[in-house]
Amino acid sequence: MTIVHVWGASGYAAAEAIRLLERHPFVELGALESRSHAGKRVGDHFPLLRALTRRFDDAGSVAKRVRAGDVVISAGAHGEAKSVVPAFLAAGARVIDLSADYRLDADAAYGLTEWNRDAVAAAPLVANPGCYPTAALLAILPLGALDAPLQIVVDAKSGITGAGRNPSVSSLFAEVANEIRPYGLSGHRHQPEMERLLRSHEIVAPLVFTPHVVPLARGMLADAYLVYADAPGDSAVREAFVRAYGGSPFVHILDADAAPSVAAVNGTNDAELRVDVRGEVVRVLCAIDNLGKGAAGQAVQNLNVMLGLAEETGLQERAIVA
Amino acid sequence: MTIVHVWGASGYAAAEAIRLLERHPFVELGALESRSHAGKRVGDHFPLLRALTRRFDDAGSVAKRVRAGDVVISAGAHGEAKSVVPAFLAAGARVIDLSADYRLDADAAYGLTEWNRDAVAAAPLVANPGCYPTAALLAILPLGALDAPLQIVVDAKSGITGAGRNPSVSSLFAEVANEIRPYGLSGHRHQPEMERLLRSHEIVAPLVFTPHVVPLARGMLADAYLVYADAPGDSAVREAFVRAYGGSPFVHILDADAAPSVAAVNGTNDAELRVDVRGEVVRVLCAIDNLGKGAAGQAVQNLNVMLGLAEETGLQERAIVA
Amino acid sequence: MTIVHVWGASGYAAAEAIRLLERHPFVELGALESRSHAGKRVGDHFPLLRALTRRFDDAGSVAKRVRAGDVVISAGAHGEAKSVVPAFLAAGARVIDLSADYRLDADAAYGLTEWNRDAVAAAPLVANPGCYPTAALLAILPLGALDAPLQIVVDAKSGITGAGRNPSVSSLFAEVANEIRPYGLSGHRHQPEMERLLRSHEIVAPLVFTPHVVPLARGMLADAYLVYADAPGDSAVREAFVRAYGGSPFVHILDADAAPSVAAVNGTNDAELRVDVRGEVVRVLCAIDNLGKGAAGQAVQNLNVMLGLAEETGLQERAIVA
Amino acid sequence: MTIVHVWGASGYAAAEAIRLLERHPFVELGALESRSHAGKRVGDHFPLLRALTRRFDDAGSVAKRVRAGDVVISAGAHGEAKSVVPAFLAAGARVIDLSADYRLDADAAYGLTEWNRDAVAAAPLVANPGCYPTAALLAILPLGALDAPLQIVVDAKSGITGAGRNPSVSSLFAEVANEIRPYGLSGHRHQPEMERLLRSHEIVAPLVFTPHVVPLARGMLADAYLVYADAPGDSAVREAFVRAYGGSPFVHILDADAAPSVAAVNGTNDAELRVDVRGEVVRVLCAIDNLGKGAAGQAVQNLNVMLGLAEETGLQERAIVA
Repeated sequence: MTIVHVWGASGYAAAEAIRLLERHPFVELGALESRSHAGKRVGDHFPLLRALTRRFDDAGSVAKRVRAGDVVISAGAHGEAKSVVPAFLAAGARVIDLSADYRLDADAAYGLTEWNRDAVAAAPLVANPGCYPTAALLAILPLGALDAPLQIVVDAKSGITGAGRNPSVSSLFAEVANEIRPYGLSGHRHQPEMERLLRSHEIVAPLVFTPHVVPLARGMLADAYLVYADAPGDSAVREAFVRAYGGSPFVHILDADAAPSVAAVNGTNDAELRVDVRGEVVRVLCAIDNLGKGAAGQAVQNLNVMLGLAEETGLQERAIVA
Repeated sequence: MTIVHVWGASGYAAAEAIRLLERHPFVELGALESRSHAGKRVGDHFPLLRALTRRFDDAGSVAKRVRAGDVVISAGAHGEAKSVVPAFLAAGARVIDLSADYRLDADAAYGLTEWNRDAVAAAPLVANPGCYPTAALLAILPLGALDAPLQIVVDAKSGITGAGRNPSVSSLFAEVANEIRPYGLSGHRHQPEMERLLRSHEIVAPLVFTPHVVPLARGMLADAYLVYADAPGDSAVREAFVRAYGGSPFVHILDADAAPSVAAVNGTNDAELRVDVRGEVVRVLCAIDNLGKGAAGQAVQNLNVMLGLAEETGLQERAIVA
Repeated sequence: MTIVHVWGASGYAAAEAIRLLERHPFVELGALESRSHAGKRVGDHFPLLRALTRRFDDAGSVAKRVRAGDVVISAGAHGEAKSVVPAFLAAGARVIDLSADYRLDADAAYGLTEWNRDAVAAAPLVANPGCYPTAALLAILPLGALDAPLQIVVDAKSGITGAGRNPSVSSLFAEVANEIRPYGLSGHRHQPEMERLLRSHEIVAPLVFTPHVVPLARGMLADAYLVYADAPGDSAVREAFVRAYGGSPFVHILDADAAPSVAAVNGTNDAELRVDVRGEVVRVLCAIDNLGKGAAGQAVQNLNVMLGLAEETGLQERAIVA
Repeated sequence: MTIVHVWGASGYAAAEAIRLLERHPFVELGALESRSHAGKRVGDHFPLLRALTRRFDDAGSVAKRVRAGDVVISAGAHGEAKSVVPAFLAAGARVIDLSADYRLDADAAYGLTEWNRDAVAAAPLVANPGCYPTAALLAILPLGALDAPLQIVVDAKSGITGAGRNPSVSSLFAEVANEIRPYGLSGHRHQPEMERLLRSHEIVAPLVFTPHVVPLARGMLADAYLVYADAPGDSAVREAFVRAYGGSPFVHILDADAAPSVAAVNGTNDAELRVDVRGEVVRVLCAIDNLGKGAAGQAVQNLNVMLGLAEETGLQERAIVA
């Protein structure tokens, strides 16, 4: 059994991580540290963890309890991980960080599991990808094997849990219901993250990225449009996807008569992909659960890779509900 | 033209009030004071007031600009009105307060318009009722003309805008969607407000009140159950309602084959009532828009009464959307 | 392994049943008969059963394949079960019927598990309770041990899946969103079902029942108000609930500072109960998943009892999402 | 006063049209024909038309009552208009058809008002555009004045009322909530409609179009991406939009620091546009109410043009709620 601590344990992604870890066959939950909710029962904070009677641990608990060989999932706010992760590493623990703090950092393994298994397996520090980059990169990277596109457009739609559980007016029910909200139009934190990864796979076409919030709690659909001077053919494209994800248990390539479904991947670590060629455009749709494959699910998948376990360990049941 | 200022102008009820006042034929909008959003364009803050290019005024603006003969709609948080309303009154303005601050105060007219027109017409200060008391009292008060019940139960369901626009975790989209939330089970601010009014109409039966939040932005349904030793008959009950609301343009008594609809009253100052007798229980259902008849709509209705205008003035169009 | 067939396999409750049965350790799925969707892949019909590649079986499949010792879960529309269940029984199978067809029938065991374990264990035919009766009876029956109330009021709120998956205007997204809909005001099929059970437990007080649809897919909250001439005390009431459900793994009696949560029971077979005494009223709130404890979850719980298994078998994971 | 009849009066777009026409200062409502709901009170069918006590007229009513000089808004299902419109025209009426039946027909004026005022003014028959083409064409057509793009991508998100009020499983609340649904991936009726119009404005770049349903009742956002070999500059693009819509009261060009809002245009005939240049891509976002500018609002706007009235007549208030 590996002891896994959660630092920053009171947000939506942390809840999903706790849920998954709690029933993971080779994991024992360590500290669940929450500065803001220390002492509160976990099951009172998260309806979906109702049965968890233990309480959130105080600030500093992970630092105090962490030992060599443990793993820490750091799920605090962006900008805060850098203040604690080095100490966890120094104590001999391995860290999977869900914030943006290490995603552009060369010292961390970028935890898009399907594309970086070896580095993840060996890394002391894994930067878990953002939800938008996870969906977009799963959709685009297989095409790196073919000719270069002129332009990439990613139009993505997300549930509001992607904005976290800290209260803000823009996440209120009455602001999200009955609205479709494009945002980050002048630049979104996830764009350089995507561009860095694309370049590292030698995909250098410029990227236009438009994120939107739509009225649901969980789920994400990214529509990637790759525009070519002379698009590759349908079979070459399909083959590239089959080759890229042949051994990946969570990535499902749908037939042309099906469509990715956010409801179908809700509560799972799955990604549903559908690809077609429309004239000179390769269109790839990718559905994930932003808290699953887009956050905590992928963190556990990375944990499995780090521990030498089968990737699916503890991830085969739907984890949690909308 | 009467100048009407709005103090505490950045919440949901304030938005609805501004929307109604802006097109009211006998009103000129004065200051729109918001401490927290001073300087921000009103139309950027509220999508539904998009066309309003003017900006929120600074803290202190109403106090500075108010003159004898003006009206102030005070729409700030509970507990704050008492710190400013006396000065508005001292300046010779009349005040309609949407907070709970004056609802138990004998010096204020209680603004449940249909039951208090004369007092409202004459009052310098009107305490606008809470949304739950509005729906519940409209449902119960007509029965004061008949025999006394043994017990009253009010089971009410509300949209989340009733909790205001200040961000809190419990108002987040992801907390409200897919949930039905009973709350205030050990006591809710609106219960003494209802009890006071019931007693003042000589309805002294004990009241059990259970409020719930359901997943919609606007709208409220209150189901009132009056339990009798010997319930009055159907026709006596129906007659009591017709008599109570015969001259009230906003209260609609539905036939037995219809049901009150929150969607039907959305964006209006209407109340839909349906009453029947089931054995020894008189059951009355009342649907209102919590921001309309439950807040800003009724405030404008009271304004009309105070100004000697027809009650419907400026209230005949749906005001705003869900 | 017991072979369990599902007759009428294309509705919401059937989907939940299939999901539960599919991973039940002592069950093997038999025919999944759907007249309307025969030949369609189950996973294309239900996003949440995406991984199920098998297809719905033709009309008549259950009748053809059923053998002595099998169990049939009949999940077709009300009124249709009576035309097929006798043949299943004649073939030596046991039947759990989710429709209303046998709920008033003395020959069937009424499958409110917590109150009828012995009869269920022995019965060839179990009438699975309606969702409203399940929630209401769990809330009321423990009070049968105390003095008799004068009056019972049940005010219930339900997600729209309770109306089934057959398309009707009143179940459309645009009709359910932004609405709170009381219905069945002149009588609902579930009222006589509740009354029959209450009487069989010697609770003869008259019942007023008001069901409502609120804007969510899954979940139900029933608020039961029992009005007394002289209400029992808090501790007697609490004790009655603890005694009634002490050995019941799915029924959770909450503390007074908590509230039942529809989100917390989503995808489970749990019921959350909270009870208090307010003057002469005993108020009991009960939250269930209408497709879980209110339908398919309880069906599997009954199946376990019929097979002599622990009640929780196959029901310990959240089954499916909102 | 012009008599305006509505044929096919029981769908969502018809409801919006009736609401607008009912308070239009120069219109008198004629027949409201509904084969399926003849005799039913309009206000019972549509909560938002609650106050309308008149009843739907029988099949054949419009044909019987229509006179020269009247206008008919035909709002029936696609494929049905062709069977009745010729008779209305033969009677001397003018017709605005909301279905797809005449949108590819050279004899009808295409009613995208801002781009076709003269033809609409003179036409006996106006084909009202589809909701997706309205949003997409408003976004793209101004760019026809500049250099030609290589490729156009339109990624659109719509509320479910676009699918109409006829019950189908895919429009059920439980299917739309918690889902993001791309559809029409192999071809959508609106694609040839868009392509025809683009070509008629000499925009011949290939178009990839991806529609999605997101969980709200009303509202549409279309994101248009025009990919160039050498994109025009920001100021040329902005100027093209200002020139195109300078005299158009319903089209609002937002600043770069704002974003189009579906909530802001809900219940209106407005379109909010935002345009920027990202490298070689011109990105234009357009928000409309699919039942407003995307259907009934634009129909009334066309009616105004046909009658020689100001375009805004009867369209200046929010019409109806979500």
